[in-house]
Amino acid sequence: MVASNVSSSTTPPVLKPTPGPDAPMREQMEAYIRRMQQVIATNLEKLEPNGKKFQYDEWKRGETGGGGVSAVLQNGDTFEKAGVNISVVHGELPPAAIEKMRVNHKNMTANSDGKLPFFACGLSQVLHPTNPMCPTVHLNYRYFETMNQDGTPQAWWFGGGTDLTPSYLFEEDVIHFHNSLKDACDQHDPEYYPKFKKWCDEYFYLPHRNECRGVGGIFFDDLDNKDPQELFEFAQTCLNSFLPGYVPIIEKRMNQPFTKEQKWWQQIRRGRYVEFNLVHDRGTQFGLQTPGSRIESILMSLPLTAGWVYQHSPEEGSREQELLDVLKMPREWLP
Amino acid sequence: MVASNVSSSTTPPVLKPTPGPDAPMREQMEAYIRRMQQVIATNLEKLEPNGKKFQYDEWKRGETGGGGVSAVLQNGDTFEKAGVNISVVHGELPPAAIEKMRVNHKNMTANSDGKLPFFACGLSQVLHPTNPMCPTVHLNYRYFETMNQDGTPQAWWFGGGTDLTPSYLFEEDVIHFHNSLKDACDQHDPEYYPKFKKWCDEYFYLPHRNECRGVGGIFFDDLDNKDPQELFEFAQTCLNSFLPGYVPIIEKRMNQPFTKEQKWWQQIRRGRYVEFNLVHDRGTQFGLQTPGSRIESILMSLPLTAGWVYQHSPEEGSREQELLDVLKMPREWLP
Repeated sequence: MVASNVSSSTTPPVLKPTPGPDAPMREQMEAYIRRMQQVIATNLEKLEPNGKKFQYDEWKRGETGGGGVSAVLQNGDTFEKAGVNISVVHGELPPAAIEKMRVNHKNMTANSDGKLPFFACGLSQVLHPTNPMCPTVHLNYRYFETMNQDGTPQAWWFGGGTDLTPSYLFEEDVIHFHNSLKDACDQHDPEYYPKFKKWCDEYFYLPHRNECRGVGGIFFDDLDNKDPQELFEFAQTCLNSFLPGYVPIIEKRMNQPFTKEQKWWQQIRRGRYVEFNLVHDRGTQFGLQTPGSRIESILMSLPLTAGWVYQHSPEEGSREQELLDVLKMPREWLP
Repeated sequence: MVASNVSSSTTPPVLKPTPGPDAPMREQMEAYIRRMQQVIATNLEKLEPNGKKFQYDEWKRGETGGGGVSAVLQNGDTFEKAGVNISVVHGELPPAAIEKMRVNHKNMTANSDGKLPFFACGLSQVLHPTNPMCPTVHLNYRYFETMNQDGTPQAWWFGGGTDLTPSYLFEEDVIHFHNSLKDACDQHDPEYYPKFKKWCDEYFYLPHRNECRGVGGIFFDDLDNKDPQELFEFAQTCLNSFLPGYVPIIEKRMNQPFTKEQKWWQQIRRGRYVEFNLVHDRGTQFGLQTPGSRIESILMSLPLTAGWVYQHSPEEGSREQELLDVLKMPREWLP
């Protein structure tokens, strides 16, 4: 099974009508992420002073395995590289994958024919801004389902998260970002923000550097302990909170002056981003190992430029050291 | 166990007298790689027109685990980043490691106290030149030994290899490079070059890109099927062949003109180099997972600058495409 391109255009694909709350969850989630891809891309384009546009590449996974749309804006003035991808794939889980997923989903069992059909869809996004005062941001919201022989859902769950990776620390920006995620969480469950904030700090951690990737956000996985419609609404609230949580930060920082040295520091931080994604990120590893994956979509998360300086060590009291201190010891940003 | 720095200087560490052929192999190999580090660094410094020097950092692994010397030249005119590292470490193998290594070394058994002391030393080198017409080169020669309770060698083996990663293909350079490795191999065994050339093509391969890292060279591991002194001589012949095999290529290409676009292509190729090292290279993975490793020495292999362009695809008939064709289908360079 090989990924192949279907079309490429700066015009977003035409959307189907939004299904109602009685439609299967896979249809609801798919329609939602397809719409959100365009909402986010259109709003990010407004931040490009010279009219740079996203390129939408539609691709399919083999003949019958689904596919996706990658929307990428490269070499912009505001964004050096911005990728907003959706994928909607289905197929049959191999026994090893079933075994692994059963740890968190006891009700997963192969159908009587020994096979287990699955469906997965999600929106993944990484934005690498040009100005080192603007933070990189990543988010991913996804829905996974296995199906009984009659096509009804067997195991299912939501996963997702949004996290921020600045090169320079602006506390007010980090607080704004976390506040927006906490508001989203609190609308659904007061336990969500503290729990998912901690999970995020733990997940986006580079053991070999002994530092966090960034200043965190939220992260959750295998969420299936409430009504699916309720959890779908939670995922929507989180993803909908992205633009108001991030865009004001970019508007504030995108025209701030910076030095060549500060641009270099950003390159070094991006090197760490590459290290995390290639060495630790489970999604990237899974994608690289899965036949039929679209490698260009998986690796769009990597920055346009990055650097590795041997033995780089910021001066005590510098702004670069200030960032490192926070990465070594994750903070609670909200009271 | 934590790696800590002992000293840092542009003056190479003082060498001890070379032990004779009756000394234990670990002492002979250690002395040889310590000397070769300085021979290589001194000769590479001659390629720097403005007198840029290697920085020698001596480090130790805990109090009793050995250590190493990293020699790095950064931001040179000829070399953007050049690292020539040696490490000489020892300790005790955990049962999982013993089990894994026993696949190739049946005589490895824990001593009666359940432990298995080991010794490992090697020279590792990666050179990333500035000019995109100059190829990146990597080499590694190492000796590994486990010890009986009386301190005599139990299992032991040599491993190593040298391989070339150009951004632009100059056939005459690749042929010169392979010729020099074939000459080295042929002095010891006519079967070595074809066998180790193939092994190299297979090892330095990125499955997710469906391409080789570069134009190959030689690679071998677990070599213990001849007298150790004979294999030590083979490793020496290979490593000694490095300077005459590589330096003439740099001298020929280092002052060739290049465009901004060609520099960008080099960045993209370096991105692939990073992908290989972080996702696939067994040495890097092992180092990142080993407590007490010196991360800066392991990751000195990463280039000073690299890039990732979404959906980059060279034009048909271009020099960039010419390189890709070779990476997709490894060639026999010698008659």
